[in-house]
Parts: sequence; C-alpha cells; structure tokens
Amino acid sequence: AERGAAVIVNDLGADTKGGGKSSAAADKVVEEIKAKGGKAVANYESVEDGEKLIQTALDTFGRIDLIQRVHLRGSFLVTRAAWNHMKNQKFGRIIMTASAAGIYGNFGQANYSAAKLGMLGLSNTLAIEGRKYNIHCNTIAPVAGSRLTETVMPPDLVASLKPEYVAPLVLWLCHEECKENGGLFEVGAGWMGKLRWERSQGQTVRQKNQPMTPEAVRDQWDAICDFTDATKPTSIQESLQSMVSVLSQVESDEEVGANPTA
Amino acid sequence: AERGAAVIVNDLGADTKGGGKSSAAADKVVEEIKAKGGKAVANYESVEDGEKLIQTALDTFGRIDLIQRVHLRGSFLVTRAAWNHMKNQKFGRIIMTASAAGIYGNFGQANYSAAKLGMLGLSNTLAIEGRKYNIHCNTIAPVAGSRLTETVMPPDLVASLKPEYVAPLVLWLCHEECKENGGLFEVGAGWMGKLRWERSQGQTVRQKNQPMTPEAVRDQWDAICDFTDATKPTSIQESLQSMVSVLSQVESDEEVGANPTA
Ligand SMILES: NC(=O)c1ccc[n+]([C@@H]2O[C@H](COP(=O)([O-])OP(=O)(O)OC[C@H]3O[C@@H](n4cnc5c(N)ncnc54)[C@H](O)[C@@H]3O)[C@@H](O)[C@H]2O)c1
Ligand SMILES: NC(=O)c1ccc[n+]([C@@H]2O[C@H](COP(=O)([O-])OP(=O)(O)OC[C@H]3O[C@@H](n4cnc5c(N)ncnc54)[C@H](O)[C@@H]3O)[C@@H](O)[C@H]2O)c1
Repeated sequence: AERGAAVIVNDLGADTKGGGKSSAAADKVVEEIKAKGGKAVANYESVEDGEKLIQTALDTFGRIDLIQRVHLRGSFLVTRAAWNHMKNQKFGRIIMTASAAGIYGNFGQANYSAAKLGMLGLSNTLAIEGRKYNIHCNTIAPVAGSRLTETVMPPDLVASLKPEYVAPLVLWLCHEECKENGGLFEVGAGWMGKLRWERSQGQTVRQKNQPMTPEAVRDQWDAICDFTDATKPTSIQESLQSMVSVLSQVESDEEVGANPTA
Repeated sequence: AERGAAVIVNDLGADTKGGGKSSAAADKVVEEIKAKGGKAVANYESVEDGEKLIQTALDTFGRIDLIQRVHLRGSFLVTRAAWNHMKNQKFGRIIMTASAAGIYGNFGQANYSAAKLGMLGLSNTLAIEGRKYNIHCNTIAPVAGSRLTETVMPPDLVASLKPEYVAPLVLWLCHEECKENGGLFEVGAGWMGKLRWERSQGQTVRQKNQPMTPEAVRDQWDAICDFTDATKPTSIQESLQSMVSVLSQVESDEEVGANPTA
C-alpha cells in the first residue's frame, strides 16, 4: 500500500483454534497502512463469504487488484468472486499461500498438507486460465514467525523469522511489471528460491501384443526412478503427448525404453 | 488379486455427474477377480463412509492391506478408517490418485486440480507418518481411457490408452517387497516416470540492519529463478534449515547470495 495499491485487509480475527471473531487484527493492519499513506479498508467477513469481501473492495475502491489467500476453501471462494472483475479490468494478481508441509509432507499434518498443496493445484490452473487477461497467479511457501508457528518453533526463531522478510516477494509478484505466472516459491529469512517439477526419463515396460506385468515394472524399477537426464515438463499437453508417443513406439515394435519426450 | 491379495472393490456406481447409485460397477470387477482365482468382495458405500468400507474388509478378510483412492475427501476418510488397522498389523500400502491436471494445471479444471494436488500433499505426510509401521504411501498421475476421459479424448485414444497399462504399477507399489514410499509417478500407455521437486539456488535479498524491499527482489529476479545447480530438497527439515542458515549468514554480514544448503 505504501506503493500505491488499494488494499482490502480481510481477517476474521479468529483465535488460533478457529473460534471467536474480532475486528482487532484487521483494524491494526489498516491503521498501519494508512499511517504510511496507503489506501486500505478492513473487512471482517470470513473468506467463506467471498462475494461480500470482494463487494467491500468494489464499494470502496471501485476495483480489485490483488488477493493473497490463506486456505483452500476460502481461496477458492474469494478467487471465484474476484475473477470476473479482474477479467473485465484485464489485470489481476493472485498469491496463494502453500507450505513446505504440503510440498515435502510433515509429520502430524495430513489435513494441512493436503489443503496447502491443493492451493498449488488451484494456482496451477488459475495461472493458465488467467494468462490472456493479464491475471497472474503464483504460490508462495513462506516461513515466518507467527501465531501459527510460535507453538512449534523456539521463541528466538519466531522473533528472527520476520514476516517482513516474506512480504517483499508478495509485493513484487503483485506488481504490474512482474511477468511471473504459475510459479512456486519458498521464501523466508530474506532468502527465496523457485521450485519446479523434474521428471525421470522413465521406462516403457510394455511390449506389443503382450500383457503388461507388475514383474516387468519391478525389474525396471531402478531405471524408472533414475533421474539422469531428467526432463522438466511444464504442461499437461507435454505429459499427454509423451503417452501418445509411447503408443506408437510400442506399436512400431522398436526397442523402446527411454522417455519419448527427451 | 491374481497375485494373492484380498481386495475390496469399492464403487458407488455413480453416473458421471455424481448422481445415481448402482452395484453393477463393483460387482463386475469382483466377478473378474474371482474368475481369475482371486479373493474379492464388493462394497457399494460411498467413500464418504470410510468406516463402513474398512469394516467390510475386516469382516471379510480379517485385515486391510491396500487402498487405492480417487478423491480428496474420500481419500482422507477411508485412509483414516484404515490407518490403525494397518499400524497394528505393521503393513499397509496406500496409492493416491492425483492427476497431471493438478501437477501442471489444466484449463477449466480449477476445482479438480486443487483436489488432485491435495492428494499429493496428503500422501507426502502419510508417507512420513507411516514409514516406521511399514505403511507406504505413493501417488500416481495416470492417463487412461475411462468414463472420465472419453468426453475429452478422441475415441481411438480412449481405446488405446488402456487401464491395464496403469494397473501393473499399482500392483508393484502395493507389493510387500516394494520399498518405494512418498513417490509421485506419471503413468500411462505402458510408460512410467517419477517426479520430484527441483529448487533453484535462489538468492538472499536482504542485508543486515536494512529494510528488505520489493525492488531488491525485482532486481535479483533472474538469479532467484535460475535453475543452474538446482538442489533437490526432500524434507521440510531441509527447507527450514536453509532459512535458519540464512539468518546467521545475514547476521555475520558476509556477502550472501547463493542458497546456503548448496
Ligand atoms: N508462518 C509460517 O511459517 C507459515 C508456513 C507455511 C505456510 N504458512 C501459511 O501462511 C498463511 C498465514 O499464516 P500465519 O503463519 O500468518 O498464521 P496466522 O494464524 O498468524 O494468520 C492467519 C490469519 O487468518 C485469519 N483467518 C482465519 N480464518 C479466516 C477466515 N475464514 N476468513 C478470514 N480470515 C481468516 C486469522 O484471523 C489470522 O489472522 C497461512 O496460509 C499458512 O498456512 C505460514
Ligand atoms: N482416466 C484418466 O486419464 C485420469 C487422469 C488423471 C487422473 N485420473 C484419476 O484416476 C481416478 C479414476 O478415474 P477414472 O478415469 O477411472 O474415472 P471413472 O469415472 O471411470 O471412475 C471413477 C469411479 O469412482 C466411483 N465413485 C465416485 N464417487 C464415489 C464414492 N463417493 N465412493 C465410491 N466410489 C465412487 C465411480 O462410481 C466410478 O466408478 C480418479 O481419481 C481420477 O481423478 C484419471
């Protein structure tokens, strides 16, 4: 907001167990933004009420530019409510918040990691659907001291891993000059890096006119899992195309093995 | 089942729009398994009723060895119902079904890609939680002709991309000799390959005692997104450790830049 964007600060003000409701959390952020000369308005609706949230933005600023979202259902509802407005104005920046717990898994967090990696799946598709309207969708997996992490991290770590070391990435990703779309970033402590999929060359374990067996899979397991000369596929079209090539390779009865996309 | 496992065939027998309920789908599969000399029993509960499904398995076979699941909420409920039984018998194999639509995104499939990548997040955590009980959890992203794909793929492709070219991978991943755990595989047409995360070295864009700015992020964007000498992190501990190293590097005021985990 210091940089000109008009911001809706949406926070239910829930306690850490998800109960309660208070306007203090959102109000505090709004005051901070205004003190720095920014435009901001608070909204205390739950993200479950995506329509109302976006209506607050439209009533106040006449437009909705960016969204940063926290959890799967809420992210879906808020994004759906904002989408057509962004499409009409041919600009939008959406930041989904995933977590390393989803990316790598984390003991005791089955539910949480499912929801958090679900955010990435959602973002992957929104990035594709939004592209031609200049709506970009990126995902961050932040690490920062917060109410969420103060129960699991030592206090000095909570104090040193400041949210201010995450925010500049969000601001850049929301900028109209930023062309990044469909990216996933880990960010914390002032460091940030990008993630992408790497896929092994894999193996075709089937031969023409013969039944495909689990024994063949077992026997070629090391080759299937070998990341030498791995590819970096970026789309479902690429993925499907490689399956289709396998079909014709097997039919032509050549020696098949390596990934046809390579 | 041809290979000795006792199988619960669970299918609601829903029509493609999710309505209706029929026992035909599950019955057909059970007949096929029995015809090949396997042990199988049909169950027509919805996966929403995970407890009942697992109870059918226990009533019939006295144990529950493997689960292959189709969607996020159902996967969660069925797995939760089976988990303690697998833990007690110190064996279990779980296969989650994700999709390339979640991995890469796909136009028009926002909901679906969120749910499908959520399966991977769930699997990532279950793989960690199950490890010491010999419960392994892996995820497949299949491509096969089915009721689901016959509406979007040309008929000859639907006919050639047989589910039989996917099943052998599932069978191998369910085998007690298979040590694979926490993996993600694309599979179809007789080909299969493994996926993993690749992370750029990234950049620390913050300096001691100075505010961190979005301009610094913008100026180092190419370096942040550069995959030269990328790492392949495999756990949240690794990820958190790299953030902690950044804190001390910045404090020690050295020239910082590259990923500390490298
Ligand atoms: N802090 C970390 O290290 C970390 C790590 C990984 C991911 N994340 C993600 O970052 C995001 C922010 O987490 P945080 O650490 O700041 O936690 P936090 O608990 O401090 O903040 C979450 C905020 O969301 C608000 N909220 C909850 N339900 C809401 C609803 N229905 N409608 C509107 N607002 C609602 C709460 O009132 C709270 O202010 C979350 O998505 C979290 O999963 C954080
Ligand atoms: N076919 C593909 O190319 C492809 C691609 C990517 C992912 N997938 C995934 O593979 C899995 C199987 O898909 P498919 O292509 O065989 O589709 P399908 O529609 O042929 O099979 C889905 C089956 O699930 C059953 N079902 C639905 N709701 C249920 C419930 N509540 N409880 C129990 N059973 C229920 C249906 O009756 C149906 O038989 C899905 O998870 C799908 O997302 C398939």
